[in-house]
Amino acid sequence: MLKNDLILKAARGEKTERVPVWLMRQAGRVLPEYRATRSRAKNFVEFVKNPELACEVTIQPVDILGVDAAIIFSDILVIPEAMGLPYQMIEAKGPWFEKTIKTKADVDALHIANAGDLDYVMQALKLTKQNLNNRVPLIGFAGAPWTIFAYMIEGSGSKTFSKAKQFLYTQPELSHLLLDKITQSTINYLKGQVASGADMIQLFDSWAGVLSPDHFYEFSLKYISKICDAIKPLVPVTVFAKDAHYAVNRISQINCNTIGLDWTINPAEARKAAGGKTLQGNADPCLLYADEKTIVAEASKMLDAFGKQSYIANLGHGLYPDLDKEKVKFFVEFIKSYKA
Amino acid sequence: MLKNDLILKAARGEKTERVPVWLMRQAGRVLPEYRATRSRAKNFVEFVKNPELACEVTIQPVDILGVDAAIIFSDILVIPEAMGLPYQMIEAKGPWFEKTIKTKADVDALHIANAGDLDYVMQALKLTKQNLNNRVPLIGFAGAPWTIFAYMIEGSGSKTFSKAKQFLYTQPELSHLLLDKITQSTINYLKGQVASGADMIQLFDSWAGVLSPDHFYEFSLKYISKICDAIKPLVPVTVFAKDAHYAVNRISQINCNTIGLDWTINPAEARKAAGGKTLQGNADPCLLYADEKTIVAEASKMLDAFGKQSYIANLGHGLYPDLDKEKVKFFVEFIKSYKA
Repeated sequence: MLKNDLILKAARGEKTERVPVWLMRQAGRVLPEYRATRSRAKNFVEFVKNPELACEVTIQPVDILGVDAAIIFSDILVIPEAMGLPYQMIEAKGPWFEKTIKTKADVDALHIANAGDLDYVMQALKLTKQNLNNRVPLIGFAGAPWTIFAYMIEGSGSKTFSKAKQFLYTQPELSHLLLDKITQSTINYLKGQVASGADMIQLFDSWAGVLSPDHFYEFSLKYISKICDAIKPLVPVTVFAKDAHYAVNRISQINCNTIGLDWTINPAEARKAAGGKTLQGNADPCLLYADEKTIVAEASKMLDAFGKQSYIANLGHGLYPDLDKEKVKFFVEFIKSYKA
Repeated sequence: MLKNDLILKAARGEKTERVPVWLMRQAGRVLPEYRATRSRAKNFVEFVKNPELACEVTIQPVDILGVDAAIIFSDILVIPEAMGLPYQMIEAKGPWFEKTIKTKADVDALHIANAGDLDYVMQALKLTKQNLNNRVPLIGFAGAPWTIFAYMIEGSGSKTFSKAKQFLYTQPELSHLLLDKITQSTINYLKGQVASGADMIQLFDSWAGVLSPDHFYEFSLKYISKICDAIKPLVPVTVFAKDAHYAVNRISQINCNTIGLDWTINPAEARKAAGGKTLQGNADPCLLYADEKTIVAEASKMLDAFGKQSYIANLGHGLYPDLDKEKVKFFVEFIKSYKA
């Protein structure tokens, strides 16, 4: 039914005629078309809640950049909001929560979200699925429980997330209780996304890197694994635990299809550690500031190092807003045209 | 002459009767005594430039925490200042530079610093050396050239240092020119530190982690290596490249004594990669929020994993200002008393 299902094939480890490519934050400020749509919403949270606008920016990179998948425009912080902690996105500062989690009473007061609580995301997915007209797969996503937990405790971004980590060290039982509620909410949410048209799911553990390996396994990977167990029977699942460089092998042992890698990871070593799982990544986003010759040289190195099968080309992090759209397009086209 | 030279012995790979310990940012806000001294200076930059105050806070953790070394209170940004780019430290925001590097003319205009340009640091070292009265070694330090470069281009802290990385990708030759000037300045500065009493030197590559491995080797480690070649004949040198998890083996091949590790690094794997070099680190700073039982359990695991020789206990990053001084002291005392 899908005209281009390269990414799904690659995720399942099936043979693909070429390497598929999409880019984290491809529906974002790097596109002037995104900024135009964005300006029609009062603020970021309203933008996320508007299915028509979300659909529009989700499809833009498919039309403009020629990527092999769309990823639904949304934010990982819709989950804390659905659980009872509304957020704002403050210009040049990032997310901010009025209420944060401090006590067991705070955790008990949280609602376990279900797909109905996030109906605007479901509507956005349905509309996008319809308008994409089966050109490429539609990726749904959620934050990994630890990353959501970190925002719920910290109340904003942080260089160290030391408040959230303090919570793990001082209140491990309550931490598990909260992580479990987030996990249940996320499973409900992702099942809803699949029912609404998501062909594939990616979990973003954006703040995995602040944890020690032991804490990552205990407070993050355990819950990612539960989500994978619930979702992988439905659609392929990608786990991207940014900066958890030591964990590739452990992630390969859970029920996921694809492991996302940041640009500090050596592709050959990741292949050895990943036990046959599909890999996704991992160009340095700043490579796209370089001239075309450098982009070709570095992207070729990346493609040769990962190999052409069981591989989804991407960056090792999201696109930066000040990158040149033409360079981004050049990168995508180069990967699509590459012959080893 | 030194009453306690455990850290120097450990750095040189000589047998030590127990594991020595110091803590990054031990001369800092975690001590109320530091905050009292700090309040006597008009601002941070003036504080750094006052040898009496710098000496005072340098010795405080030796008296209060019982650490096995003092590290001179200063800032890595004294080098850009001495080269012609003054900085301010803005409350709750961090460093800020009025002038940044954009063009070749900007690079050409930079002065190659010498120890005389940083006489206030030399005075602080001499005074501290005298007042320490040979109780413990005095550690000098500098930022690694890439980290200094990153601030010179970016003009402030950054989550991604994408401007500085863009500079590497688009102007590699000019980048090398600038890194070379920083390296020459740093060598002059560190030789001055040794002449003024520093018994050991640590290089902080605080932003190594934003680079791809190839860029780290080309634009960072190459210059760190030049500094080590100049300084290691004088005193032991420690290289701490935060988040360059993949580089332990490559760092072990340069002319340094000790490799600093952050808390995401597995001690046993680092031992394998480090080819006999001394290791330093790597407790998660947030461990010191935990209760004493947890601190004992985790610190014991760390000590057992690293082994007792060719090892300097430390955190994997600096102390956070809101940690409890008593917990910090407990950690230091536990390490000093540990019998395997």
